[in-house]
Amino acid sequence: MQGREPELRRDAVTGIWSILAPARSERPHTAGDEGEDRACPFCPGNESMTPPEVWALGRQERAADTPGWEVRVIPNLYPALKPDLPDRGWRRGIRVGRPARGYHEVIINSPRHDLTLSRMKPPEALKLFQAYRARYSELASYPRVKQIIIIENHGSQAGASIEHPHTQVFGLPLVPTMVRDELRNARRGWPASCPLCEDVIEAREDGRVIAENRSWVAFTPYASRFPYEVRMVPLSHKPGLDFAGDAELSGLAEMLPAVLRGLSSLLEDPPYNLFIHCAPSDGKDYEHYHWHLEIIPRGEKAAGFELSSGVYINTRAPEESAEKLREAIRG
Amino acid sequence: MQGREPELRRDAVTGIWSILAPARSERPHTAGDEGEDRACPFCPGNESMTPPEVWALGRQERAADTPGWEVRVIPNLYPALKPDLPDRGWRRGIRVGRPARGYHEVIINSPRHDLTLSRMKPPEALKLFQAYRARYSELASYPRVKQIIIIENHGSQAGASIEHPHTQVFGLPLVPTMVRDELRNARRGWPASCPLCEDVIEAREDGRVIAENRSWVAFTPYASRFPYEVRMVPLSHKPGLDFAGDAELSGLAEMLPAVLRGLSSLLEDPPYNLFIHCAPSDGKDYEHYHWHLEIIPRGEKAAGFELSSGVYINTRAPEESAEKLREAIRG
Repeated sequence: MQGREPELRRDAVTGIWSILAPARSERPHTAGDEGEDRACPFCPGNESMTPPEVWALGRQERAADTPGWEVRVIPNLYPALKPDLPDRGWRRGIRVGRPARGYHEVIINSPRHDLTLSRMKPPEALKLFQAYRARYSELASYPRVKQIIIIENHGSQAGASIEHPHTQVFGLPLVPTMVRDELRNARRGWPASCPLCEDVIEAREDGRVIAENRSWVAFTPYASRFPYEVRMVPLSHKPGLDFAGDAELSGLAEMLPAVLRGLSSLLEDPPYNLFIHCAPSDGKDYEHYHWHLEIIPRGEKAAGFELSSGVYINTRAPEESAEKLREAIRG
Repeated sequence: MQGREPELRRDAVTGIWSILAPARSERPHTAGDEGEDRACPFCPGNESMTPPEVWALGRQERAADTPGWEVRVIPNLYPALKPDLPDRGWRRGIRVGRPARGYHEVIINSPRHDLTLSRMKPPEALKLFQAYRARYSELASYPRVKQIIIIENHGSQAGASIEHPHTQVFGLPLVPTMVRDELRNARRGWPASCPLCEDVIEAREDGRVIAENRSWVAFTPYASRFPYEVRMVPLSHKPGLDFAGDAELSGLAEMLPAVLRGLSSLLEDPPYNLFIHCAPSDGKDYEHYHWHLEIIPRGEKAAGFELSSGVYINTRAPEESAEKLREAIRG
């Protein structure tokens, strides 16, 4: 690491990529600081505490970086990826690396500091998901972005450093291993079958479905890695969020807050990681890929066995998780 | 999940294997319960609290399951893998599964409840590593064991459920993805080169070495996933622990406690995961594989980005970690 700029490096032994981002260690951690009275950089009126916005949903006459927004998007102040880095990779011996050139944005979910996704009404959640789609489509149009990952970390135990509900969007210059693995598994049976379309059918057969509406199904995966892990799949097989119409996003906006409320009441507002998996954005054709969401409540920790094998020990059967979640969602 | 027996399942979307082990949720958690006065099942005199021992190092005249042992090995009372399960796999639709048939043992590091690995003297650590090798060789001789993983979780934040220092040995009926990936990377340049032999050379070039003796080198990996991650590599290229002679284990016994003391003084006794990676034990030839150890201090949490991409964001450059660790080891 020569400077303080983020760098992507590949481990020659394991094949795993890491982003070295020393400047991120300087970011403030306010999540969990209930007592402290620090100003929230994501609240309206504090727009000057963040980098200038790159996108917002709000009143038409509104000036940038002033209140009046409903969803606001800014570059991450402590980015893991930056657009203005040199465009070169290197190999020295077995050391493979490159500047971590890309995008790392923050979507501020709403002006309300206490409005978690689980408390959002469907119209509020719809606006948020429209913002997801807008940023997804924008970053996907940049030629150097190969993969977009959208995540929401809820609670400091799940890695959230700022309490005000927000989402992170990563535009990566490479296709991560986990997406490559999913692409390979999807290609295997295509076009006769898709693992996610079949996953939905088998979740219904097994009684693992926890919620279903006209456009989405939520269920606990057959090989769940964690207790109460939830997979949410759009019934329409499409490679990514940019293919989702408003009707589909409305279906998600009805279902996701309800599922999160169920988790919250069952596990007492657990920390969780939510992420959206889409096909790469490198201009190739990925019609075999089926985009989806996952929610991973962070009760049990991945320990030495998981870190060393990539195999997960889960102490709760997904069939049992599904039953309890269904009850919790019904309230 | 029909019963309460552990089951291996493969996710058809991601390809990731999980072990569903509901009975493990019933295990007691005593690590971190400083104030509580519960009897420790791993202390001498309490041998009846554990399943009967399968191996021990101790006085010759000693009866099994009585005090007088220096290292004691027992089956895990809450196993993720069990030897007495039916030997069959299944595929129903895309659901691939099999009974989690295998071995899950606990090595009680020493009779002393407070003797962490970091506080062990080299002769004490040597006895422990000889126990590791003995159990490794025994499980490797069982025809159905394809891979052995040895781990030590230190601290409840790293997943340890019992405070008394102990090690877990997993005998798996399959070769985990992460080992497969390492095998593929190792085979690529073989026999001209080995990624671990070269890793050592480049760590020296880059100033990432933190300790070195006649048979081992410890360094922070070029693409470290976590701050202060340490890789320890035997200078002699061999596929597994069963090839290690006593001189090599002595070298490890001198180095590992010193490295852990350095981590402990630098990070104030951090939780950590330690694991040993060896070639599969399925009877095939793996001369291209180079066994090694890793230590992962658990300060920063893997969050949504890591769980969804398999790419790790590390906020500390390994070159800087190495410098601080060297200082801490020198005291």
